[in-house]
Amino acid sequence: MDDIEIETVAEPETTEPVFIEGLPGVGHVGKLAAEHLVEEFDGTLVRRVYTTEFPPQVTVGDDGVAELTHAEFHYVEADGAELLVLTGDHQAASNEGHYELTGAFLDVAESMGARQAFALGGVPTGELIEDDEYDVLGAVADTETGDELAEAGVEFREDEPAGGIVGVSGLVLGLGDRRGFEAACLMGETSGYLVDPKSAQALLETLQTVLDFEVDFADLEDRAEEMEEVVGKIQEMQGGGGGMPSEDELRYIG
Amino acid sequence: MDDIEIETVAEPETTEPVFIEGLPGVGHVGKLAAEHLVEEFDGTLVRRVYTTEFPPQVTVGDDGVAELTHAEFHYVEADGAELLVLTGDHQAASNEGHYELTGAFLDVAESMGARQAFALGGVPTGELIEDDEYDVLGAVADTETGDELAEAGVEFREDEPAGGIVGVSGLVLGLGDRRGFEAACLMGETSGYLVDPKSAQALLETLQTVLDFEVDFADLEDRAEEMEEVVGKIQEMQGGGGGMPSEDELRYIG
Amino acid sequence: MDDIEIETVAEPETTEPVFIEGLPGVGHVGKLAAEHLVEEFDGTLVRRVYTTEFPPQVTVGDDGVAELTHAEFHYVEADGAELLVLTGDHQAASNEGHYELTGAFLDVAESMGARQAFALGGVPTGELIEDDEYDVLGAVADTETGDELAEAGVEFREDEPAGGIVGVSGLVLGLGDRRGFEAACLMGETSGYLVDPKSAQALLETLQTVLDFEVDFADLEDRAEEMEEVVGKIQEMQGGGGGMPSEDELRYIG
Amino acid sequence: MDDIEIETVAEPETTEPVFIEGLPGVGHVGKLAAEHLVEEFDGTLVRRVYTTEFPPQVTVGDDGVAELTHAEFHYVEADGAELLVLTGDHQAASNEGHYELTGAFLDVAESMGARQAFALGGVPTGELIEDDEYDVLGAVADTETGDELAEAGVEFREDEPAGGIVGVSGLVLGLGDRRGFEAACLMGETSGYLVDPKSAQALLETLQTVLDFEVDFADLEDRAEEMEEVVGKIQEMQGGGGGMPSEDELRYIG
Repeated sequence: MDDIEIETVAEPETTEPVFIEGLPGVGHVGKLAAEHLVEEFDGTLVRRVYTTEFPPQVTVGDDGVAELTHAEFHYVEADGAELLVLTGDHQAASNEGHYELTGAFLDVAESMGARQAFALGGVPTGELIEDDEYDVLGAVADTETGDELAEAGVEFREDEPAGGIVGVSGLVLGLGDRRGFEAACLMGETSGYLVDPKSAQALLETLQTVLDFEVDFADLEDRAEEMEEVVGKIQEMQGGGGGMPSEDELRYIG
Repeated sequence: MDDIEIETVAEPETTEPVFIEGLPGVGHVGKLAAEHLVEEFDGTLVRRVYTTEFPPQVTVGDDGVAELTHAEFHYVEADGAELLVLTGDHQAASNEGHYELTGAFLDVAESMGARQAFALGGVPTGELIEDDEYDVLGAVADTETGDELAEAGVEFREDEPAGGIVGVSGLVLGLGDRRGFEAACLMGETSGYLVDPKSAQALLETLQTVLDFEVDFADLEDRAEEMEEVVGKIQEMQGGGGGMPSEDELRYIG
Repeated sequence: MDDIEIETVAEPETTEPVFIEGLPGVGHVGKLAAEHLVEEFDGTLVRRVYTTEFPPQVTVGDDGVAELTHAEFHYVEADGAELLVLTGDHQAASNEGHYELTGAFLDVAESMGARQAFALGGVPTGELIEDDEYDVLGAVADTETGDELAEAGVEFREDEPAGGIVGVSGLVLGLGDRRGFEAACLMGETSGYLVDPKSAQALLETLQTVLDFEVDFADLEDRAEEMEEVVGKIQEMQGGGGGMPSEDELRYIG
Repeated sequence: MDDIEIETVAEPETTEPVFIEGLPGVGHVGKLAAEHLVEEFDGTLVRRVYTTEFPPQVTVGDDGVAELTHAEFHYVEADGAELLVLTGDHQAASNEGHYELTGAFLDVAESMGARQAFALGGVPTGELIEDDEYDVLGAVADTETGDELAEAGVEFREDEPAGGIVGVSGLVLGLGDRRGFEAACLMGETSGYLVDPKSAQALLETLQTVLDFEVDFADLEDRAEEMEEVVGKIQEMQGGGGGMPSEDELRYIG
């Protein structure tokens, strides 16, 4: 196998789809959001990306049928908006691999006509977020793109996130910009301890405004309720009312 | 030395041997099973595979005679069934190495006429298995192969093993399928704490039914008894009857 | 992206600038010193160096504007002295990467006419340094260069630093010498626990003497005062007078 | 710099020197023994080997004069015996690097006429060795070489060392044999906790018999006494007579 192999599954006619990246990361916010788009709009699988940078692994689905781990591009028509959504279960294994793999992802997006890229992710706050006030933080390569997003409610804060943006999301922005993409990261605030469907919803609400589509959130809301039940049970077990579960317990849930 | 070097030791006439992989893994189930086939049917060493992905190491045998660590293919005639059995002491050292090495293993199998591949391994249950009820779990690339194996008693369960199948076994299935092999993983249930000859026996009993051969299990039964004595002694030392040895003790045994 | 990409931003006329390296390391002494030169003398950005050896990361600055992480060469006219100053946020990720990246840095320096190289860094003493007696330790490839530096007050001690000089600084000396640079490491003594602007100042005072320029230290002195306030507060919280903060606290500050 | 660079320092006339490898390892036994040969017989430096597999590091010697870390071959005339002795401060950084580097070492040895190779090292026993009874363990690629060594007092034990022989020493034997060297590992028994000059002496006494030369041991005996003093002091501090120092203390010494 080559280091990266791209398998063409379908070749839909596209004009200028917006590239949306949602690989695993903090709170799985980006992944949840991207997968929700694919499911709600019944996206078409267009590319599978296999790479030696992913773990040597098959994932097992229904009836023990397994497939080699890979990332997937789906073509999604969201009302009028055309999206090219990247999802998967892994990031790359090495620094160099991150650069190579993101380069390959941008090649695919470019070849299908994308000129605009959104990397979706989460930004950890270190504490549970109260009252459903999930801010969406942004990072861009140029101030012009930033102004448009700020109008849609995206927050831009000096030097935040403090540690920069790491992984494929960071490179979709950094390498994408160098290749001429109008690129941005959108990051839902999240505790960092939990898989966070509410943060994913906040992220998608922002994206709706920016790209002008509308998506149903019932499924994400169901998943958010499940998460809350689990957190509630742990709090009960601690014999406490509002006591926050410990980090260890929360990680367990995640 | 090249990254992978394959040394031809013998070139038997083969028609369409079944490729059986049994490298080290959970409970050494796959390795025990594969080595048992080579020993019982007096297999012929046909290939040595050296690779820079293995540790820089010689293994020392009788009288201090050492050899460079490598994996081995043996050609095995098991009653009427022709097998090409891969054994060794190591998996690869890196993600990329796993892909390259499994590719090389499949090259060898293909060049000797194999079209069907079984990756043997263990699946950890986290607890000692009672009453010798060792289920054999399966994973396949297509449902047809699955149906045949299910008839032989292999269990197929949705999303199990939960973490997927990792390492050379996973790739024999995942890469093998992509290259046209009819590939399956067979995994003996095992605690995950012990070298488990009983699980290896259960695995081979299933394989017997699938491939229609019969093998003597006396040696595996002896090894199983030895393991039981060791576990028994530890339980005694704990002053307990049925008390399960702690994880640390069990690892020590493994 | 190639493993290393060098982007030319400006091409000033240079005669024989002195190459000054100040990447992150012990106490960030080299980085603070190099950045101070660029700021005080209003250096011109001449090269950006991108590499897959750096983390897959964008750094976020004002208003959420991000850029792909990279190292920078600035051309600095310091009174009469011409300097080519290398700064950045990262070292390489692997042994091999350190060698390749330092080779590329030396290529740039050579192409701009540099024949002399100073790698700036810190040497950890393990204890807070009292009374502002910050020695500057030197290492050179030949004794002649050492004699000149010793006249400027640089200390040379047998077998110090004991563990050798590791990272880009070590290789600027080691590889630089092999390529014909007159190369030296200058290392400010520092506790090793704190970002240390005072050690950076001591380093620059020595460099001033060697290269015959004069720089204003007000900014470094301000940063040193800030650091002292933080250390003071921690000591207060410990209810102690002269009690040294614990290693953990100091690391937190760093 | 290339991955491996070999610098020719001298080109003495050799007939068929014996290749002796003594890089760092258990108890530094091999390194001590090899360095002792170079010093006592006033060896001639013939090759420097630089490689990106070594740490990115310069080592600092007298007066702060530093040099890029490397391995060295010395040509040694020991009475009538011609030796080509490899010493250095590091092993390789990766599995693949070990294979490549050992291959390069064997290239050098071959090019200077060597046909016989001894890899020197230590084998850990886990306990301090009493009464100066330091056995020397051997491993060989063929039983013939083993017989000769056994006559010189080398012990050969089935499956020992249990974990095989890892690192450059293992590969000098494993790769050397595959290239036609008559190769052996000689391993001095040592606790594994201490730099062990006594074990190095035992190793050299055996090598003397095999290769028919005689070396003065005064220096190694002095170093052994220094080690004993240190161990003695620790035992005193523990307020004990014959109490063995704890593993942590011993490591500290090493």
